[in-house]
Amino acid sequence: MKLFSVFASTAKWMRSIHTPQIKPNLIKREENFSKWYQDVIKQSGLAEPSAVRGCMVIKPNGYAIWEKIQEHMNKLLVGLDYQNAYFPLFIPLKFFKKEADHIEGFAKECAVVTHYRLKKTDTNDLIPDPEAKLEEPLVVRPTSETIIGDSFRKWVHSYRDLPIKINQWANVVRWELSTNMFLRTTEFLWHEAHTAHASKKEALEENKKIIAIYRDFIQNVLGIPVIVGEKSPGERFAGADNTFTFEAMMQDRKALQIGTTHYLGQHFSKSFEIIFKGVFQENNYAYTTSSGLTTRLIGGLIMVHGDDYGLRIPPRIAQKQIVIIPSGINNDEGLDENPDLKSYIEGLTKTLKGTLYHGAPLGVQVDNRSMNGGRKAWNWIQQGVPLRLEIGNRERLSNTVTLYRRDEPHKTKISIPMDKVSECVVSTLDQIQTNYFKQAESFRNLHMKKDIATFEELRQFFTPKNEKNPEIHGGFVLAKWCGDPETEAKLKEIKATIRCLPLEQSGTSGKCIITGLDATLDVIIGKSY
Amino acid sequence: MKLFSVFASTAKWMRSIHTPQIKPNLIKREENFSKWYQDVIKQSGLAEPSAVRGCMVIKPNGYAIWEKIQEHMNKLLVGLDYQNAYFPLFIPLKFFKKEADHIEGFAKECAVVTHYRLKKTDTNDLIPDPEAKLEEPLVVRPTSETIIGDSFRKWVHSYRDLPIKINQWANVVRWELSTNMFLRTTEFLWHEAHTAHASKKEALEENKKIIAIYRDFIQNVLGIPVIVGEKSPGERFAGADNTFTFEAMMQDRKALQIGTTHYLGQHFSKSFEIIFKGVFQENNYAYTTSSGLTTRLIGGLIMVHGDDYGLRIPPRIAQKQIVIIPSGINNDEGLDENPDLKSYIEGLTKTLKGTLYHGAPLGVQVDNRSMNGGRKAWNWIQQGVPLRLEIGNRERLSNTVTLYRRDEPHKTKISIPMDKVSECVVSTLDQIQTNYFKQAESFRNLHMKKDIATFEELRQFFTPKNEKNPEIHGGFVLAKWCGDPETEAKLKEIKATIRCLPLEQSGTSGKCIITGLDATLDVIIGKSY
Repeated sequence: MKLFSVFASTAKWMRSIHTPQIKPNLIKREENFSKWYQDVIKQSGLAEPSAVRGCMVIKPNGYAIWEKIQEHMNKLLVGLDYQNAYFPLFIPLKFFKKEADHIEGFAKECAVVTHYRLKKTDTNDLIPDPEAKLEEPLVVRPTSETIIGDSFRKWVHSYRDLPIKINQWANVVRWELSTNMFLRTTEFLWHEAHTAHASKKEALEENKKIIAIYRDFIQNVLGIPVIVGEKSPGERFAGADNTFTFEAMMQDRKALQIGTTHYLGQHFSKSFEIIFKGVFQENNYAYTTSSGLTTRLIGGLIMVHGDDYGLRIPPRIAQKQIVIIPSGINNDEGLDENPDLKSYIEGLTKTLKGTLYHGAPLGVQVDNRSMNGGRKAWNWIQQGVPLRLEIGNRERLSNTVTLYRRDEPHKTKISIPMDKVSECVVSTLDQIQTNYFKQAESFRNLHMKKDIATFEELRQFFTPKNEKNPEIHGGFVLAKWCGDPETEAKLKEIKATIRCLPLEQSGTSGKCIITGLDATLDVIIGKSY
Repeated sequence: MKLFSVFASTAKWMRSIHTPQIKPNLIKREENFSKWYQDVIKQSGLAEPSAVRGCMVIKPNGYAIWEKIQEHMNKLLVGLDYQNAYFPLFIPLKFFKKEADHIEGFAKECAVVTHYRLKKTDTNDLIPDPEAKLEEPLVVRPTSETIIGDSFRKWVHSYRDLPIKINQWANVVRWELSTNMFLRTTEFLWHEAHTAHASKKEALEENKKIIAIYRDFIQNVLGIPVIVGEKSPGERFAGADNTFTFEAMMQDRKALQIGTTHYLGQHFSKSFEIIFKGVFQENNYAYTTSSGLTTRLIGGLIMVHGDDYGLRIPPRIAQKQIVIIPSGINNDEGLDENPDLKSYIEGLTKTLKGTLYHGAPLGVQVDNRSMNGGRKAWNWIQQGVPLRLEIGNRERLSNTVTLYRRDEPHKTKISIPMDKVSECVVSTLDQIQTNYFKQAESFRNLHMKKDIATFEELRQFFTPKNEKNPEIHGGFVLAKWCGDPETEAKLKEIKATIRCLPLEQSGTSGKCIITGLDATLDVIIGKSY
């Protein structure tokens, strides 16, 4: 009894933040991809715009994905000996001035705090109190290399103090001119990992370790295939000697930079005096790195896996892998009118909640709302829950469970015997996880062209042809580049950029796609968000 | 081999953020309590001041406690059907203006963002760009009733949508004039839980539920005895009809408000139009509540449990309950020089990490640093780890473990047989948890006076007598109060306040401690932070 009163209250609560529709009412991806994206976010209750320009409200369904991202990344970072800490939101202007490239990169998009008090005017208006003006304005952190560098300065004295590896989960603010939910918002959430090392070699090794855990997480948990590579000089992080990026193809064939790790050399250690005594008591500047993943990942997840019915969440990042829908229940009494079915479902729920999936108990929800089963099913399809189990008297009498997979046509069902349910659910979830990755990979490979020889062909490739959806162009191009930074500007003509120089270089020779000169570097060219 | 290379790297890392001392070098609590407090924070690596006025850096040891707080509170809040979400950092000024009391309470301590870009001057200085002035300034959230109220407005339409229960983990900023690490900082971290209900009764029930989980968590997990009560009108949250507070006594006998839950009535639903249609289609304003616990809890933890050697962390909130110190190991080779001992310790570590303590695996650290055992022991005493296990050849040959408890004199040890180690460690940790609570409770009861009859006696009680430590006064007073808000001002003369009207009222009659008039209300009077 107690168990079901909890279900009832949860059901009530679900209604409150997401009123389900009878059938998905989405525009098709191929008709208008960006509208489809916004619709999915709305329909699935992931986020909504706020009253503050460029800032969104991350609603419970969206935040649940972020919490799963945190859970996975915390484990991976602990495995590399990172420790979590927290640094101030505000950065003194003088810190900002210390690193010249850093200023150039971030000064144009900083929120600046200038007052520390409000005041009522004679007309009862509220204004920043002119008498409470800060002597030195504070910048709301766009990233924390500077303020963390200032702590590293205090923590590092000898080579014995190195390496230092710190991670922070935080909000950051970059005043973007055009914003888009999850992809580019004025405020966003992220993890930022910062390290200091005794040598360049060690620091670059750290970048490699981060690349390994990011790749593992993005591909195997988020199910998003990525190309890992170096950014060209024009696309590097402000203050970095090298930026390694993770580039994924969305279903509109654009590239999304989905994570980065930077080798910062001695830029910040020189600006912030992160100095250590070496084995022979000589003074050295430390070598630092920084790395980050943001709430943008959620945007990537939607755009890589979603379909014309809505969201599809890969099982390993879903907070709920399974929803159980009692069938033949259609009023406010709910399951109480059928005690046999109720106890059958209680047993099933208990079994599933006691089943481990990749080391954690399965996330199971019983949908006991008073609405018809079809509406419920559509609701969960829209929300992207990987598995639906429908259970009625037929299932109870035959001691089975009817299973629907989100990666198959929504009427396809299979019946499984109750005594195999844990085993079957776990293997099916793994199949769905693999399917999502493979589908995304096939899509990307299909739209990555490797045989484009001239700039004119490149222009053609990036020119949208679909009248219905004028944004859709060719996709990615793998081509040769001569490496001259000056030549990158020419790609702007066709609204494309060098997304990265893949870490896996072929080593072959050819002609630069931009200049036609001899070239050996492999690059990925694409349009981006 | 692999296992121990991880230990070695962890050991290296520990050095980096906390250079241990041979012996605690703390001032005694009774000599200068506030200096003792700052010293413990420094010595235990919990936090440090930052370059931003009033903002601290929460270092890994401090943040680990915060993460445990989050873990516990998330479970308790999910149990009450709260869902986590995230709302913008910035609040439009116009939102702030909507709730008059709210303005009064917070306008004086707001950080205000007025510009969205920096600009280089001719003299190469960096200033807020005058051309990038916001039309409407943004307030950095001091609390989120307003911005969350704006979402509730969109989410609530019918009584069926209620209750709504949302929780947010976030940073907030209140521009405090005098700051103190963890207790009062310009920026701090907290959870803020917000609800909307269809009736006053339901909203007040919600406050009761929050009181129950807060009390459970603060007393049983943090080990801090609290008096729960209503705030007097003068001490209420700005915009609340009622504020329920959790008051704890620190070892300097001051009161610390360690958590609050507010009944907000219809103030915010009227300002933000949180309107629902009732059963008969009539329009009603919702009733809202908000509740919060902050990083201040960590300050309370230090000041309630710490002793003259340093921190004492109650086992249920410790990230590491146990440290294993190999003995007879004193060089860079570490345990590699003694393979038998190494494998003995590996076995012990595995056993302990596989042992559940209140539902989660024990947190175990092996201290394999190359320094002598005495220094290590002092280091862990300072950091407040509940149990130390010292393991050398003697233990290995007798198949035992030598155990030291943080709640006993630091040389007191007991020997336990290896095959009882899990059982013994778990029961000892529970004893320590109980001891810390009981010690704190005895201290508070000893310094809570219930028989003060006149205002003059009250003045005497709150006048410090200890010349060595001029801050130390009597403690708490349980007295009668007539309930007239005007009379509260008189307590300011003796620098005390009504901390709360305890929920458990005696119902007896007496004389008001301030006015001498007939009075029935029980109140707790104390000095506060």
